[in-house]
Amino acid sequence: MNEEPKFAVIGGGSWATAIAKMLCHNLEEIAWYMRNDSAIEEILENHHNPNYLSSVEFDTNQLRLTSDINEAIAFADYLIFAVPSAFLGHELEKLTIDISDKIIISAIKGIIPESGLIVGEHFCQTYRIPRENICVIAGPCHAEEVALERLSYITIAGIDLPKAEIVADCLKSHYIKTKVSDDVFGAEYTSMLKNIYAVACGMAHGLGYGDNFQAVLMSNAIREMKRFIKKVHRMKRNINDSAYLGDLLVTGYSLFSRNRMFGNMIGKGYTVKSAQMEMNMVAEGYYATRSAYIMNTDLKAKTPIIDAVYDVLYNGKEPKKVFKKLTEKLD
Amino acid sequence: MNEEPKFAVIGGGSWATAIAKMLCHNLEEIAWYMRNDSAIEEILENHHNPNYLSSVEFDTNQLRLTSDINEAIAFADYLIFAVPSAFLGHELEKLTIDISDKIIISAIKGIIPESGLIVGEHFCQTYRIPRENICVIAGPCHAEEVALERLSYITIAGIDLPKAEIVADCLKSHYIKTKVSDDVFGAEYTSMLKNIYAVACGMAHGLGYGDNFQAVLMSNAIREMKRFIKKVHRMKRNINDSAYLGDLLVTGYSLFSRNRMFGNMIGKGYTVKSAQMEMNMVAEGYYATRSAYIMNTDLKAKTPIIDAVYDVLYNGKEPKKVFKKLTEKLD
Repeated sequence: MNEEPKFAVIGGGSWATAIAKMLCHNLEEIAWYMRNDSAIEEILENHHNPNYLSSVEFDTNQLRLTSDINEAIAFADYLIFAVPSAFLGHELEKLTIDISDKIIISAIKGIIPESGLIVGEHFCQTYRIPRENICVIAGPCHAEEVALERLSYITIAGIDLPKAEIVADCLKSHYIKTKVSDDVFGAEYTSMLKNIYAVACGMAHGLGYGDNFQAVLMSNAIREMKRFIKKVHRMKRNINDSAYLGDLLVTGYSLFSRNRMFGNMIGKGYTVKSAQMEMNMVAEGYYATRSAYIMNTDLKAKTPIIDAVYDVLYNGKEPKKVFKKLTEKLD
Repeated sequence: MNEEPKFAVIGGGSWATAIAKMLCHNLEEIAWYMRNDSAIEEILENHHNPNYLSSVEFDTNQLRLTSDINEAIAFADYLIFAVPSAFLGHELEKLTIDISDKIIISAIKGIIPESGLIVGEHFCQTYRIPRENICVIAGPCHAEEVALERLSYITIAGIDLPKAEIVADCLKSHYIKTKVSDDVFGAEYTSMLKNIYAVACGMAHGLGYGDNFQAVLMSNAIREMKRFIKKVHRMKRNINDSAYLGDLLVTGYSLFSRNRMFGNMIGKGYTVKSAQMEMNMVAEGYYATRSAYIMNTDLKAKTPIIDAVYDVLYNGKEPKKVFKKLTEKLD
């Protein structure tokens, strides 16, 4: 296996750790970049990431761990980015080496706040990565269940399918089933939009709405998502595929989803600032809401749920009133 | 309000109780039939159904309670049937009066075991009720949340829309939003099919599959449901409407769903018989599986999930092996 593809994982969080685990089933060696030197030390010493999915044991002979992003990138041809979208710009500022001939794989479900772009487009426009060298990893896949080796299905989207297939081959295992798709835009935008709907689910829950309403909200959300994505990039896709509907469901129904939790706190009466402080992080859905809302001023899709979440998060409107109005628009 | 439509609720379970509550917001008087005399006595004395949704208070002046089904039916023009499908035949045997000029509204989500027909068709074929006098009440709507007056959306399907609208008007309230649809077949068959998928979700859970897989299963289930219903009755419908997808979600994700619980026990290793004895009832999805499977020998839709559930419930196949094979067919 001297000619195995060379992968680097960029990020030290739970999704990055899950992806590193997936790769280690198939590759002799991967590069793994994380900012945190003490986490690296601990992985080398104890064979697990102390902060995320700590039940996952690594064979450290397989890991080229580094806190120098350029070192990781120099090693690899395939770069899997799995940092929060809000931090990607900051990480990329550290680059001193050229990445224009690399295959870029986004495992980030969000919008780059600085550019307002989805990750693939950000790389394409800012780093001149050709579109055929960009892939996206889509769920439905909680990192926690990867740690437990519970059967999960992921979709690798890329317009150059043979490249997507190489990525898929390196990620699959006895508990990870992979498929490829050429719908990069669909995979990226629905990954981003689902976080907004998870915020909405959380808000509804926080406001006291029950399971019957949640089902109606989800049923409206997938139809809204379809309208939105059709305006962004029209192509033949079944919105009920696992990569779209499945991903929406696992996020919207999960009590562990950060976006849902964030929405729940807002629904319960926290301000946006205090919810963010309390959670000690920013939910992807917060940025996604603004980006989707702004994009939609051009697209003009009917998006009552996005509009409602935007009104609460960015216009300071009262969640209770906003949702009361929203319920009139759903069916 | 002398000319208000006259309704009878047939059944004493939780869904019947929820429907009686909905009607009482709009009508001065309804007939309510239940087998159990002591439950009737208790409602008259304590103003709530002792066995189901006991938090719901009734004004007994509004209720013509009776354990004589003919008395209830004689009073009403609109008959809402809300008994388990397995008992409907037995109840209907008691009829001595003609029901051919009544409006029949099915709130039953299943197949009549004796005839293998959905409820509307059973009334049509056995009691010569014209199709335009048949309506169906579709969810997503847990009775428990009606008791709590949590916002819920229901769909009344009927090919004669003005009649469906009368039913809708009598059910709606500040927490029940109603809409009408002309897709009777879609509403009945999807209500029935969703119970099979809930059994499948339960089996998967019982076998140790996690949330990632559940999302994939649901995403495949709604696509399978669409293929099935398209073969039964082709018409323009959005399978992602609340009456179809929403109803599937509320059933499949609910820990309180009897069908999911039944499947869970099977997945955990109970035999069908012991699960039924343990639960002291038969889950609708059990009969629905056989009916759907048999129907599909003609329809020939691709239904790997129904086939898997059938293999476990009726062919005595081992759930673990059947689901392992099923996972290869999902995507």
